Amino acid sequence: MPYRAPAADYQFLLDHVVGFDEVAATERFAEATPDMVSAILDEAAKMSNEVLAPLNRNGDLHPAKLENGVVRTSPGFADGYKAIAEGGWIGMAASPEYGGMGLPFSIQNAVNEMMGGSCLALQLNPLMSQGQIEALEHHASDAIKDLYLPKLISGEWCGTMNLTEPQAGSDVGALKSKAEDNGDGTYAISGQKIYISWADNDFSENVCHLVLARLPDGVPGTKGISLFMVPKLIPDENGKPGVANSLKVVSLEHKMGLHGSPTAVMQYDGATGWLVGKPHGGMAAMFTMMNNARVGVGGQGIAVAEAAYQHALSYAQERKQGKAAEGETILGHADVRRMLAQMKADVFVARAIAAACAAAIDMQTATGAPEWTARAALLTPIAKAFGTDTGIEVAQQGIQVHGGMGFIEETGAAQYLRDVRVTAIYEGTNGIQAMDLVARKMMDGGEAAYALIDEIEAYAESCKATMPELAGPVFTAAETLRETTEWLVEQELNDRFAGAVSYLRMFARVLGGYYHLCAANAAGLDGARGRLATIYIQRLLPEHGSLADQARQGADDLYALSEEDLVA
Amino acid sequence: MPYRAPAADYQFLLDHVVGFDEVAATERFAEATPDMVSAILDEAAKMSNEVLAPLNRNGDLHPAKLENGVVRTSPGFADGYKAIAEGGWIGMAASPEYGGMGLPFSIQNAVNEMMGGSCLALQLNPLMSQGQIEALEHHASDAIKDLYLPKLISGEWCGTMNLTEPQAGSDVGALKSKAEDNGDGTYAISGQKIYISWADNDFSENVCHLVLARLPDGVPGTKGISLFMVPKLIPDENGKPGVANSLKVVSLEHKMGLHGSPTAVMQYDGATGWLVGKPHGGMAAMFTMMNNARVGVGGQGIAVAEAAYQHALSYAQERKQGKAAEGETILGHADVRRMLAQMKADVFVARAIAAACAAAIDMQTATGAPEWTARAALLTPIAKAFGTDTGIEVAQQGIQVHGGMGFIEETGAAQYLRDVRVTAIYEGTNGIQAMDLVARKMMDGGEAAYALIDEIEAYAESCKATMPELAGPVFTAAETLRETTEWLVEQELNDRFAGAVSYLRMFARVLGGYYHLCAANAAGLDGARGRLATIYIQRLLPEHGSLADQARQGADDLYALSEEDLVA
Repeated sequence: MPYRAPAADYQFLLDHVVGFDEVAATERFAEATPDMVSAILDEAAKMSNEVLAPLNRNGDLHPAKLENGVVRTSPGFADGYKAIAEGGWIGMAASPEYGGMGLPFSIQNAVNEMMGGSCLALQLNPLMSQGQIEALEHHASDAIKDLYLPKLISGEWCGTMNLTEPQAGSDVGALKSKAEDNGDGTYAISGQKIYISWADNDFSENVCHLVLARLPDGVPGTKGISLFMVPKLIPDENGKPGVANSLKVVSLEHKMGLHGSPTAVMQYDGATGWLVGKPHGGMAAMFTMMNNARVGVGGQGIAVAEAAYQHALSYAQERKQGKAAEGETILGHADVRRMLAQMKADVFVARAIAAACAAAIDMQTATGAPEWTARAALLTPIAKAFGTDTGIEVAQQGIQVHGGMGFIEETGAAQYLRDVRVTAIYEGTNGIQAMDLVARKMMDGGEAAYALIDEIEAYAESCKATMPELAGPVFTAAETLRETTEWLVEQELNDRFAGAVSYLRMFARVLGGYYHLCAANAAGLDGARGRLATIYIQRLLPEHGSLADQARQGADDLYALSEEDLVA
Repeated sequence: MPYRAPAADYQFLLDHVVGFDEVAATERFAEATPDMVSAILDEAAKMSNEVLAPLNRNGDLHPAKLENGVVRTSPGFADGYKAIAEGGWIGMAASPEYGGMGLPFSIQNAVNEMMGGSCLALQLNPLMSQGQIEALEHHASDAIKDLYLPKLISGEWCGTMNLTEPQAGSDVGALKSKAEDNGDGTYAISGQKIYISWADNDFSENVCHLVLARLPDGVPGTKGISLFMVPKLIPDENGKPGVANSLKVVSLEHKMGLHGSPTAVMQYDGATGWLVGKPHGGMAAMFTMMNNARVGVGGQGIAVAEAAYQHALSYAQERKQGKAAEGETILGHADVRRMLAQMKADVFVARAIAAACAAAIDMQTATGAPEWTARAALLTPIAKAFGTDTGIEVAQQGIQVHGGMGFIEETGAAQYLRDVRVTAIYEGTNGIQAMDLVARKMMDGGEAAYALIDEIEAYAESCKATMPELAGPVFTAAETLRETTEWLVEQELNDRFAGAVSYLRMFARVLGGYYHLCAANAAGLDGARGRLATIYIQRLLPEHGSLADQARQGADDLYALSEEDLVA
């Protein structure tokens, strides 16, 4: 069975679970009428199913290659990219002033998932450009905007992010790349960058690198970092790609998966760059880009989870084994049903969290209200980490459903796991996401978290009469989350960090209860969504209990264990 | 840091945790003195570290190939195999009558893990031969034993298991391969077998296939299946490999990992075979082989977990990031310590369960006492499933500890996950193991489980005075396990199956508490083992609670969810 993009599920989420009507009711997003949203989702699903999905295995079998300094992309990727660009999917959420469609981030988020489910390696390319578009919209000068945005939005040019250096990964502030003022409004950028996704390709006219580097007077650490636009080909006076810049792709990595996406080591040798934002203000600009990119990467996890789930379900529907005499498939086995039901229940949770986060981002954009900013900020690390963890877990289970076939590459089940594995690492590892949640996102003393917990409890309360078996456990779990949060905000940072990953997962488990409850309430307890909600709340929600225990351990026991203890 | 085989940890487990002294006190295993065991473990560790470990990446980069019908193995594998064979490691536990060392299975289990941690793909070869040796020892005629056992034990010949067919995987009884009596004491075997590990090689004189097939009067299902020895080269009157048999390797699979181990489709066209065991008694013979092979595969999971843990720890000890100004490594981060501590704690649990299972098998062999048979039978599926799940989970976490480097193949972290993934599938999927636990292994009404729970509770009780914080939670968890077992044995099979995987994992979590408690008690609460036990009991043992909830759900909610619900 080929991949079918989950347009209907997004339609349901937007209509009934994450309050998209509120987004559409704002002046800013007034054009996002139900009819338009529906048409867009259907169109994106069609392209994902028909154009992109057939490319997925090509990317795995025929990785991007570096030949004489030029990246050659996987067969068919150029056509796939063209379809994405011509469909306007890169600039969906970008400003109409520069050719974008000005749609809500919620819609871009949905479409990105569909494209990612069909071909993750290719989808990563527009995801990078979208992040760059957003950073430029917020921080670049008009001159840079006028020159670059139309090209990036149309897809004629692609964008990349250059943060990491060998000694500066999670610790971006340790970077050594340098920028020197050329005295003519440009800067000379020098240094080496690693893990640069889609650093080059053979289908766009130009590649625009956003590079973090330090000016001579930049202080050590993140506060001394500036952001520069460093194009592969320097635009001439007409804005056409002109002479080659002093930069090159040094090598491509051999990766566990995502072979269709070239991941490069980049060398800048006095390359010409233009400052984006203020001197030493690079991190602020980068965070604009990274925050939504984190939701985007979470969406990559969900995308693969959906595809892996569909693939496994399809196999289970065909595979006769055991009880075969009666013509039954393995779907008749309780354990196989359990795996598939839990996979589906968790895909829904991950998607609902991401959609809720996207809706909050839209409300923030439309209203500027601080409570929406806080909500978006709170949900972002959860959307990223739980989305990508779910991608890995569902891909794992997908392999298991396939039995022996799952380990054979031709089946495709293994590729999902190999491809999705990196999503828990890049754009800030999931450990970093959890630390962000318990530190930065709790600098408000837990206010944003409590506001969301209040919302969950009020909703559960309102459902207690009609769905007591579901609403009760959700309310109780929310209370445990509240108590855990209360404990957490009182602790030293390192004690929070020790429980951060468990706390984030616990938060996601409780949110899952909430969104499943919404779905059951909207679609009926006696329907498919009600049955799935029941399975989630009875089987998966209880995990929040042991996660709460873990979250509240503090760090002492971990540091009591010495390095020698770990080696022994 | 290169792999260091965990000889010391096995020594500790044997001495202090799993009661190996009881094994050594039997007449059957009287030769397994402490000095001898210690020397053997050290010798095996040395070979694993020095000879096998350097081959691991070769196998991944240069998969076994099929050339003109002949399998060409990965570079260095022939030498590695020679070292294993010449060290006597294949026939460690085999009967001295045929050249084996007659050592306890416990020792073979330990050595197998060490070989697997250094090079899993190659280790799978002797693991297959060991299973065959055991099956022949128990079921073959003297003529077959005399001819084959010395060759298999010396490693001159290799053994394989041929069960699976395209339509007969977990459901072995559906197999279609046929055997016809040639009237001269031999049989003509015809059919196709898939997923045959190490079906051929270029370093042994002969390959001996144990093939399941149906005689003309065999009833449908497992009761009509017989087992045959079908050698690649038919031994001549002197027992030397003679003419080629009518069988061939049709193709090798492209797998997610374990590339150094050739996995074949085999075709038998009236190949000459000899009956092993009674007509239609194939399943019984196969189960002898499979049971201990399941412990062996569990050991493969533990092996990779250990190697992946060491690899990740070594990286964390070197990698400076964050707090880098103070020269700290990422080991200073609470979340990294948490990951590594939990990895180490779970490796210990998985290894202790396997070692306890191996000791029970030895006691069964030495005493024939039904309680040891029952204990071994109970622990086998747990050892297999928890060992391999731990392999996958620790390999996953190992990648995460590496950050971006984890996704780069040259690092080696990804190979562990790709290699180990199949261990949760082959030799009976982990779902099948869990079903075995709650069905066959509970046919005694839970007696074997209760006996073990009694033992755990008595031990926890005895530690309550000295280690109340550790002993208390273990006792409570054991009680929950008892209650869950009591519930389980009263249910219909399908309700048990719906909770089987959770029940098995819960059992492992409780066993983990027990063995960590033993370790802390033996080595001191204030030592490294006490600190690790504390982390396990506070952080990981609590998972048993939600697992118990899941185990007791029954199947109704899963079947209420229709196939249409799953597709929607």
